[in-house]
Amino acid sequence: MNLARFALSVMVLSLTAPAFGASPLQEKVRTWRVAHERELIDEYRELLAIPNITVDRANIRRNADFIVAMMKRRGIAGRLLTLPSPNSNPVVFGEVKVPGATRTLVLYAHYDGQPVNPAQWAPGWEPFAPKFATGPVEQGGKIVEGWKSGDPIDPQWRLTGRGAADDKAGVFALLNAYSALVASGAKPSANLKFFFEGEEEFGSTSLRDIIAAHREALRSDLWIVLDGPCHPSGKKVVMFGARGDVNMHLTVFGPKRPLHSGNYGNWAPNPSQLLVNLLASMKDDDGRVLVAGFDDDVTPLTAAERRAMMAIPSIEGDLKRELGLARSETLGRTLFEGFALPSLSINGIQGANVGAQAANVIPTVARAVLDLRLVPGNDAPRQVAKVVAHIKARGWHVLDRDPTDGERAQHAKLIRVEIKSAGTNAQRTPMDLPIAQSVVAAVQSTVDYPVILMPSLGGTLPSIVIEEMLGVKLLTVPVVNADNNQHAENENVQVQFLWNGIETYAALMTMP
Amino acid sequence: MNLARFALSVMVLSLTAPAFGASPLQEKVRTWRVAHERELIDEYRELLAIPNITVDRANIRRNADFIVAMMKRRGIAGRLLTLPSPNSNPVVFGEVKVPGATRTLVLYAHYDGQPVNPAQWAPGWEPFAPKFATGPVEQGGKIVEGWKSGDPIDPQWRLTGRGAADDKAGVFALLNAYSALVASGAKPSANLKFFFEGEEEFGSTSLRDIIAAHREALRSDLWIVLDGPCHPSGKKVVMFGARGDVNMHLTVFGPKRPLHSGNYGNWAPNPSQLLVNLLASMKDDDGRVLVAGFDDDVTPLTAAERRAMMAIPSIEGDLKRELGLARSETLGRTLFEGFALPSLSINGIQGANVGAQAANVIPTVARAVLDLRLVPGNDAPRQVAKVVAHIKARGWHVLDRDPTDGERAQHAKLIRVEIKSAGTNAQRTPMDLPIAQSVVAAVQSTVDYPVILMPSLGGTLPSIVIEEMLGVKLLTVPVVNADNNQHAENENVQVQFLWNGIETYAALMTMP
Repeated sequence: MNLARFALSVMVLSLTAPAFGASPLQEKVRTWRVAHERELIDEYRELLAIPNITVDRANIRRNADFIVAMMKRRGIAGRLLTLPSPNSNPVVFGEVKVPGATRTLVLYAHYDGQPVNPAQWAPGWEPFAPKFATGPVEQGGKIVEGWKSGDPIDPQWRLTGRGAADDKAGVFALLNAYSALVASGAKPSANLKFFFEGEEEFGSTSLRDIIAAHREALRSDLWIVLDGPCHPSGKKVVMFGARGDVNMHLTVFGPKRPLHSGNYGNWAPNPSQLLVNLLASMKDDDGRVLVAGFDDDVTPLTAAERRAMMAIPSIEGDLKRELGLARSETLGRTLFEGFALPSLSINGIQGANVGAQAANVIPTVARAVLDLRLVPGNDAPRQVAKVVAHIKARGWHVLDRDPTDGERAQHAKLIRVEIKSAGTNAQRTPMDLPIAQSVVAAVQSTVDYPVILMPSLGGTLPSIVIEEMLGVKLLTVPVVNADNNQHAENENVQVQFLWNGIETYAALMTMP
Repeated sequence: MNLARFALSVMVLSLTAPAFGASPLQEKVRTWRVAHERELIDEYRELLAIPNITVDRANIRRNADFIVAMMKRRGIAGRLLTLPSPNSNPVVFGEVKVPGATRTLVLYAHYDGQPVNPAQWAPGWEPFAPKFATGPVEQGGKIVEGWKSGDPIDPQWRLTGRGAADDKAGVFALLNAYSALVASGAKPSANLKFFFEGEEEFGSTSLRDIIAAHREALRSDLWIVLDGPCHPSGKKVVMFGARGDVNMHLTVFGPKRPLHSGNYGNWAPNPSQLLVNLLASMKDDDGRVLVAGFDDDVTPLTAAERRAMMAIPSIEGDLKRELGLARSETLGRTLFEGFALPSLSINGIQGANVGAQAANVIPTVARAVLDLRLVPGNDAPRQVAKVVAHIKARGWHVLDRDPTDGERAQHAKLIRVEIKSAGTNAQRTPMDLPIAQSVVAAVQSTVDYPVILMPSLGGTLPSIVIEEMLGVKLLTVPVVNADNNQHAENENVQVQFLWNGIETYAALMTMP
C-alpha cells in the first residue's frame, strides 16, 4: 500500500511539474505566477473564508461582491446578473472585449458550494477557515502550523475549505490566467465573458431565468466550463459532456412519537427497518440497480466516444489501493464506462442517532437521500418515476407531504418522496466539432503527454440548460486534483493544480 | 382519530384521579402533597436542570450530591457508594432504620439518563431546562408560557426534560412518599434502603463492583424497582421481571475518503447501500427476525405467567390510533406477548447526511446501532453471536476495530462490530412468592380497579445482577405515564402520575 501510494504520488508529481519545454507564453505565465503567487493565495484565502452554501443568501452576496472586486482589480468590467427573487443568487459576469477578435468564449465556473457539517471535518480543518495541509487527511495530511501570509508555499500542499476545489478554484484560475496574459503582454484571441454561477450546487434553479433575461450579453461561440476534477493520475482532460442529476428525498413514517425500543420493540414497526428494506430492494451488493427499466432509455455512445472512453488510462488499480477498496461496483466496467450509464446512490441515510448519541428508541421517521445520475436519453422526471414505481410496487403508499391521520390508519408503509430541485438532464458535445479540436490542441500545448478526452464527466453541470437556451456547445476543462473531497468533509485543492490551471486557461484564452 | 384520542384521555383522567374512597393513610398523604406540591415541584425542577447523561461525570456527581441533600432535608442518612474508578458513577444510598421492623426493603431508581440530541427536541423543549407543557408534543402540547414558581400546577400538564420520567421520577416519588409518611405520623413497616443508581442507561457497568463492595449495607428481603411506565391506559402495574438488553454498534467501511457521487457513483461501493442490504437481511417488513435460531433458547412462560399476560387489558387498538400506525409488528401477538420474546431493533442508522445537510457523496462509513432485548433463556453474548454469525454467513469480514490496509485489500465487505457494554440478561420473579403478593396488595389498596400484573417489563433493568449477587428477588412498580418519550426527544412526565407515585410508594412502605 505504501509503495503503491508512493508510486502514485511520484507519477502525479512528474505530471504536474512538466519537464518538457514549455511554450514561450507558458514560460511567461509561469514566471509571472511565481513572482505573484503569495499575493494570489492571500486573495484566494479571503475568498474561501466567505461561506458559500447556496442557500446562505447573505454570504453568497458577499462572495459575489468579492469576485466583482477581484475583476475590478484586473481591469475586467464586472457586474451581477440578478433576478428579482430573493431566493435567486447572482451570476457574477465579467467581459473583456478584444479588438479584432472574431470569436467569443464564455468561461464558466461556480462560486457556491455544497452544504457542510463542520463536525465531520478533521480537527483543524474547517469549511470556511482556509489553511494549508501537508496532504489529504486520508493520507495522514496535517495542517501546516505556523504558516503565515508571505511565507513560501509548497506546491504539494493542499489548501483546505469548502469550495477550495469545487469550484472557487475556477474563479481563481480564470481571473489569474487573464492577469497573467495582461502582465505578459499577450492578447487573448477571443472576446472573453466570465460567468460565475451562484446556484450550481442547488440544481441551478435560477439559471434558465437569468439566461432568458441576459441572452444578448451571453452571445458566444462556445462555453468552456471549469469544473470537475482532472484524471486521478493528475493528467489534464477535456470533457465533452456531463451526466445529469436529480435527488430524491425519502421520509418513512413510523410511530407519531418516539418509542422505547424495550417497551415497544417487536411490536411497533421501526421506520429505519422499513427504509433499509426498501433501499435494499433497489441495489444489490454488486452494484446492480434493481429498479425496473433503469437503463432502458440510454442513448448508446458513438463509435468515437466509445474509442475515447476505452483510451482513458486505467486507474482502477491505483484508485482501489488509494481508497482501500477490495472491489468496485464494476460489474466488468471501468470507472469511466460507468459514466455512460445512469447511477443510483444513497447520498445520506439517517434514523435517530448512532455513536455516543445513540439511544434505545424506535424513531418517528427515517430518512434517505438518493442521487440519480442521468445520461443522454434519460430524462429526470422519467427516471424519478421509475424509482417511484419501484417503491409503489412494494406496497408503499407514496406521498409528497406528511401523512394525514386517515392515511396513517389506512397504510402500513407510508413514504414521503420529495424532489426539491427539478434536476438536470445530461449533455454531450460531439467530439468532431472543429472548435472542440482547437480546445483540445490548446490544452495539449501545455503538457507533454496525450491529453485525456472523456465523452462525459461523471458529475453534473448545467450544460444542457445552456445548450438548449443559447444554442451553443460546451466543453469542460477541469483543473483540480481528483482527490479533493469535493462535496464532502475536508475539501482541498493541491496548490500545484491551481498553478497548472492558470497555464491551461492562459492557453485556452489565446488559442488560435 | 380525534374522538379516539378524546376517549383515551378521558379514560386516563378517570383512572389517575380515582373517585373511590381512598384509605385513611392515602388521604393523609394526598392532603400533605396538595399542601406542598409547589415546593416539591420546585425542588424537582432543580434536579432535572442538572444534566444527567451517564458519561458526563462532572454533572452526574452534581446530581448525586443534590440527591444526598434531598435526603438530608428529609432526615434520611444519605451517602455515596463509590468505586475508585473515575469512570464509575456513584450510587446514592440512603437508609431509614425502623424500630421493630423485621423486614428490609431496598427501593431502587436511577438518576442517570439516556443521551440527548437537543436539535431533535421541539422548539422550547430542552433536555435540561424543565418546563411545563400542556401535553405531549405529538398531541399538540405547548410549553406553558409565563408559569413561574408558586403558580398553580395543572395535574394534566407534563413536566419536560431528560429524566423527568426515566428515572428521576423515581427519586421524586420515593423521597416524597417518605416525607409524606413522616409528616402524616405514619411509620414505615420495614427498614428502608434507598438505592439510586447512576449508570443504568449505560449498562450498569459498575453495579457488580459496587454491590460486591457494599454487600452488608445492601442486605434486604426484597428490592422494589421504580422504573418503566404504567400501563398505557394509565393503570398501575406490578411487574415480575424485565427483559435483558445488549447493543451492537455496526460500522461498515467504504472508500477511505468521501467521494463525489457523480464522479464515482456506480463504481465505488457505497457503505450505506451495503449496510442497508445487511440490515434488510435481518428483519422483514412484517417484523419477522430472520437471524437463525434467534428465539431458540427462550424459556417458555409458566401457566400463571401466561394467564397474567393474557389478562393484561388490550391496548393495541388505542395505541395504534394514538401512534398513527395501521399495523403493528404483531405476527398475531399482543404488545405484551412480545415481551416474552427477544427483539431486534435498529436504534439508529446514519450514513453521511440527510435534509439540508445532504450532499452528493459516497461516504467513508455507514453506521447503525442494533438493540437486542433478551428474555429468560437468552444470554447476551450468545444472542450477539447469532447476529455475528448471520453477518459472516453473508460474506462479511467482521472486525472489532478499523480495518488495516491489508484487510481492506482482501475483503470487499468489512464491518466493525462493537459491544460497548457487556449487556444485561433478563430476570423474572415467580408470581406466587408471598412477598410478591404483599406488594400487589399494597398497590391494589390505592386504586379501585384490578392492578395489572405483568410477567415482564418490555424494557431492561439490572435485576439479574442484583438477584445473582445478593440472592434476593425483585419486583418492579412503575409510576410514570406510558407516553413519556423516555429515551427520546421531548421526554416528559404527566404531573398526576408524580402525585399517584407518591401514594403508591407510601402504601408500599407501610405494607403489612
